[in-house]
Amino acid sequence: MTTRIGFIGLGAMGLPMASNLQRKGFAVTAYDIDPAKVAAVAALGATTAADVAQAARGQDIVITVLPATQHVESVVLGPDGVLAHIDPQAVLVDLSTIDAKGTDRVAALCAERGIAFADAPIGRLALHAERGESLFMVGADDATFARIEPALKAMGTDIFRCGAPGMGSRMKLINNFMLLSTAQIVAESLALGTKLGLDVQIMHDVTGATTARNGQFHVLMVNKALKGDTSPGFTIDLAFKDLTLAMNAAAEQRVGLPMGAAAHAVFGGARAGDYASKDYSALLDLACERAGIPTPRMEG
Amino acid sequence: MTTRIGFIGLGAMGLPMASNLQRKGFAVTAYDIDPAKVAAVAALGATTAADVAQAARGQDIVITVLPATQHVESVVLGPDGVLAHIDPQAVLVDLSTIDAKGTDRVAALCAERGIAFADAPIGRLALHAERGESLFMVGADDATFARIEPALKAMGTDIFRCGAPGMGSRMKLINNFMLLSTAQIVAESLALGTKLGLDVQIMHDVTGATTARNGQFHVLMVNKALKGDTSPGFTIDLAFKDLTLAMNAAAEQRVGLPMGAAAHAVFGGARAGDYASKDYSALLDLACERAGIPTPRMEG
Amino acid sequence: MTTRIGFIGLGAMGLPMASNLQRKGFAVTAYDIDPAKVAAVAALGATTAADVAQAARGQDIVITVLPATQHVESVVLGPDGVLAHIDPQAVLVDLSTIDAKGTDRVAALCAERGIAFADAPIGRLALHAERGESLFMVGADDATFARIEPALKAMGTDIFRCGAPGMGSRMKLINNFMLLSTAQIVAESLALGTKLGLDVQIMHDVTGATTARNGQFHVLMVNKALKGDTSPGFTIDLAFKDLTLAMNAAAEQRVGLPMGAAAHAVFGGARAGDYASKDYSALLDLACERAGIPTPRMEG
Amino acid sequence: MTTRIGFIGLGAMGLPMASNLQRKGFAVTAYDIDPAKVAAVAALGATTAADVAQAARGQDIVITVLPATQHVESVVLGPDGVLAHIDPQAVLVDLSTIDAKGTDRVAALCAERGIAFADAPIGRLALHAERGESLFMVGADDATFARIEPALKAMGTDIFRCGAPGMGSRMKLINNFMLLSTAQIVAESLALGTKLGLDVQIMHDVTGATTARNGQFHVLMVNKALKGDTSPGFTIDLAFKDLTLAMNAAAEQRVGLPMGAAAHAVFGGARAGDYASKDYSALLDLACERAGIPTPRMEG
Repeated sequence: MTTRIGFIGLGAMGLPMASNLQRKGFAVTAYDIDPAKVAAVAALGATTAADVAQAARGQDIVITVLPATQHVESVVLGPDGVLAHIDPQAVLVDLSTIDAKGTDRVAALCAERGIAFADAPIGRLALHAERGESLFMVGADDATFARIEPALKAMGTDIFRCGAPGMGSRMKLINNFMLLSTAQIVAESLALGTKLGLDVQIMHDVTGATTARNGQFHVLMVNKALKGDTSPGFTIDLAFKDLTLAMNAAAEQRVGLPMGAAAHAVFGGARAGDYASKDYSALLDLACERAGIPTPRMEG
Repeated sequence: MTTRIGFIGLGAMGLPMASNLQRKGFAVTAYDIDPAKVAAVAALGATTAADVAQAARGQDIVITVLPATQHVESVVLGPDGVLAHIDPQAVLVDLSTIDAKGTDRVAALCAERGIAFADAPIGRLALHAERGESLFMVGADDATFARIEPALKAMGTDIFRCGAPGMGSRMKLINNFMLLSTAQIVAESLALGTKLGLDVQIMHDVTGATTARNGQFHVLMVNKALKGDTSPGFTIDLAFKDLTLAMNAAAEQRVGLPMGAAAHAVFGGARAGDYASKDYSALLDLACERAGIPTPRMEG
Repeated sequence: MTTRIGFIGLGAMGLPMASNLQRKGFAVTAYDIDPAKVAAVAALGATTAADVAQAARGQDIVITVLPATQHVESVVLGPDGVLAHIDPQAVLVDLSTIDAKGTDRVAALCAERGIAFADAPIGRLALHAERGESLFMVGADDATFARIEPALKAMGTDIFRCGAPGMGSRMKLINNFMLLSTAQIVAESLALGTKLGLDVQIMHDVTGATTARNGQFHVLMVNKALKGDTSPGFTIDLAFKDLTLAMNAAAEQRVGLPMGAAAHAVFGGARAGDYASKDYSALLDLACERAGIPTPRMEG
Repeated sequence: MTTRIGFIGLGAMGLPMASNLQRKGFAVTAYDIDPAKVAAVAALGATTAADVAQAARGQDIVITVLPATQHVESVVLGPDGVLAHIDPQAVLVDLSTIDAKGTDRVAALCAERGIAFADAPIGRLALHAERGESLFMVGADDATFARIEPALKAMGTDIFRCGAPGMGSRMKLINNFMLLSTAQIVAESLALGTKLGLDVQIMHDVTGATTARNGQFHVLMVNKALKGDTSPGFTIDLAFKDLTLAMNAAAEQRVGLPMGAAAHAVFGGARAGDYASKDYSALLDLACERAGIPTPRMEG
């Protein structure tokens, strides 16, 4: 029997994911505030929903992919939101990257009403979503996971179980804290190295062959700022939001983060001007600008 | 004709390297202040030198592998040092990790006397040196490089040309700045993630599949602190020395390093107590200690 | 005619302030969740209120002194709170230190209902409140200020007008950001100086005679940690809350705070253990502990 | 009997100090590499020295005021330097701000030769030197101090004994670490406060009345950057040198300085451009520039 999926949120991530589900044999009912996005999925055979309620009702699984905590709270928990309309035997899966405490609130309200819930934030980019190669960090119990696994596999290649509901959001927080802080180290290293007269290709090759190797230099930067491309991607504003989630979690957990604090200050300062809306790989441009040198470039 | 190599400094790195050279057909004359080390290479057929002068004289190549700038300056530049005895047509190759300005002084004095010089700091560990799998970051002109390449290939698998003499030391500085700073980010991430209830194996697997992936977590930590092994390796004291080289270079180049400064402060603080002589992966122990939790462990 | 004052919140600050108002001729109606505190003011002739509503009704001025944003929101804005009962011609004065956006919400709701409002956070300690020597940072329009000035003067000696409603809270945020960050600089300086062999009395006297002079060393530390007294005062937990307000404001304003971030990380780390509930001057103990030395002491 | 003083180094500090000594009855023999400076003191009746040797010979006290460690080492310890010519019963007093280990080397060589030595770095500005109101941080034994005290009193009003030779330099290091780090906190506070809409005069007055009060805001900034004057004074380059002395001392003493590291990174970054040669109060301009606002101004 075909699995029915209500899909809410057709942004840069949601649209290709909903499309992949429909293409791979799921019966998708799609909703977004932008009707053009809904039409794009409908063109693949999906059902059109006029509002959240219609997308939530009568589904086996309801998936939400929304920009931030407040959107999840209003779309899911609001008076005419998902929880008000979802079938009691359905599963709610939130793929949004939000505050772990926001996830906990959704999870608690689902538990109260006996609705199965999983958080499964996404660990890769829109281009991976298009190829069906997303990575998911899943917080779910075994039974719930078994019910959503086929849908996740239709959208992604790497499905990681991180623990109970809420642990997906926590894993995402740690993942992004680690990678965003590392990006700034790469920016400082390349600015200093360039000033010392080192060629960026050599820095790339040498660090790529030692334990200095990291995805921010060897995957992100080479494809973005080092090519002169700082179109987002993942903006400094959004990256700052994620670092702030980490700082808040650290505050709550009573953990000091000396490097995290320094990174937070750099991202925070970068937001004062034009950098706010650039890809966060533009930290390299900022570091070079402050060092008084042009950003080094690597040929593709 | 067999290439004659004077090899000075038979420590953790120098001993296996000199041994590999001798085994692979070079005629090594070995010297170290510790006669037991010299005897070990002699047992493989190498010639024994009684002092620096004897090791330096009558060679095609003289190789030095010494702990710090002051040792290079005294062994190479001192009154009875390498430069006082080396043949005018020989090449001097310094594999030590030292201050780039120290390298520049050696290079300048070699240039003055018409002696070919290369700096080629080592980018991997003693275990790689034993297997002949070292990585070298070479600062040398083309003619000099051609003359030393066979010897480097007898000791290592990855030979990177970084520019003129002095650029090897600069590349090493950037490489270590990047990896040491990243180690502390990993420590903070794992301490926070553990307090949030995440399993370290899951953090490992997820970040390993995103651009958070880095050699400090996925190569260093899993083999050291996460196994409960913080025997050096590379001590926090030595790591701090390397970070200080980066801070000094940044000062000279008028580059601010916000993350580097934070890392320098953490390593600096770690040196107050027992951590000084531990492997720098013990930063994870320190972060967990300060967070009030036991260090997480991964099974091999 | 005697000015009638409803006074809500009789903690370390509120109790001596309400007492001073009653002693100096104001007709105080006092309320606190702790009846013993209410009784203490009643003993001076004040009227006892059984709840917030009773304290708010029929007054010329209603003063609130509460621990944090959420208390102000519930006591003032809650269904049976101050705004539900205050006379339309009365003034509401909030002396609490809270999030400036919390103050803005209260101010906006007062404006909607035509109730005059002032925020006037307190800039000194409980001991000053007892002596009637408090400092107030007032956000209020001219007319409102004129009506509350006599009451403020009965409680304090230094009344600063900082601008429109909300600017008192913003001034408090900056004041505490500056002093708390400075405290950590003093801690680092004294730890390093002590390790260098300098006597703390000499450090005190010399810096006191240069532009290094500051209230954290020359007023706070000499009266607290340098005397071995780290009983709160102002706990590290509360200080961290204030630094977090500054970090959040900086995030919103798109300002990077490199020193603020470092301070936030230190206070944050200090909260992991016993330091959380100590006076923030205990940062000196923490810095010395980490430096491996005993905290220096000065004789009173 | 008139005390004979050889005075070497007639820069911004040395010239007014030598002049004051001559005016107040000491018999000064003055030397500087700039003959115009020597002539200026000679015009007050001082004897002219043609070189260091002449200034050093036949004196009761020899005073040096030089820019940095290397100048002290060459002028004092060099082959034709002070130590080669000073009378064995004379006292050498170094007023320069230099690396404490440089001071230790001078002290050790004096001790070897039985020459009394004191280090007495200066804690105020050129304008104070002109008025004879300097502050000295003196490292000296009792007998030596007794011999130099009258001369110090002719140049300054605040003479602090900090311990044995070398402790003057260490005190100066701590003093400047404390004040320079505090300057950046003031810069961040004022940038944030201004963005929050606070008037700088109000920030000045309020923090001046709490324990946030500090000499960097209430003495330095109000007289320099807040008046639009960032002519040096004390350049960011020199301030960075002093912070580097503190970082080096901390490294040696195995003390981590989280705030110091952040300050060092900010000063370091400021040196990339035009700020290098401005007064360090220009940190306020830098913080405001990065926050995207004009620097606030206070009327004198």
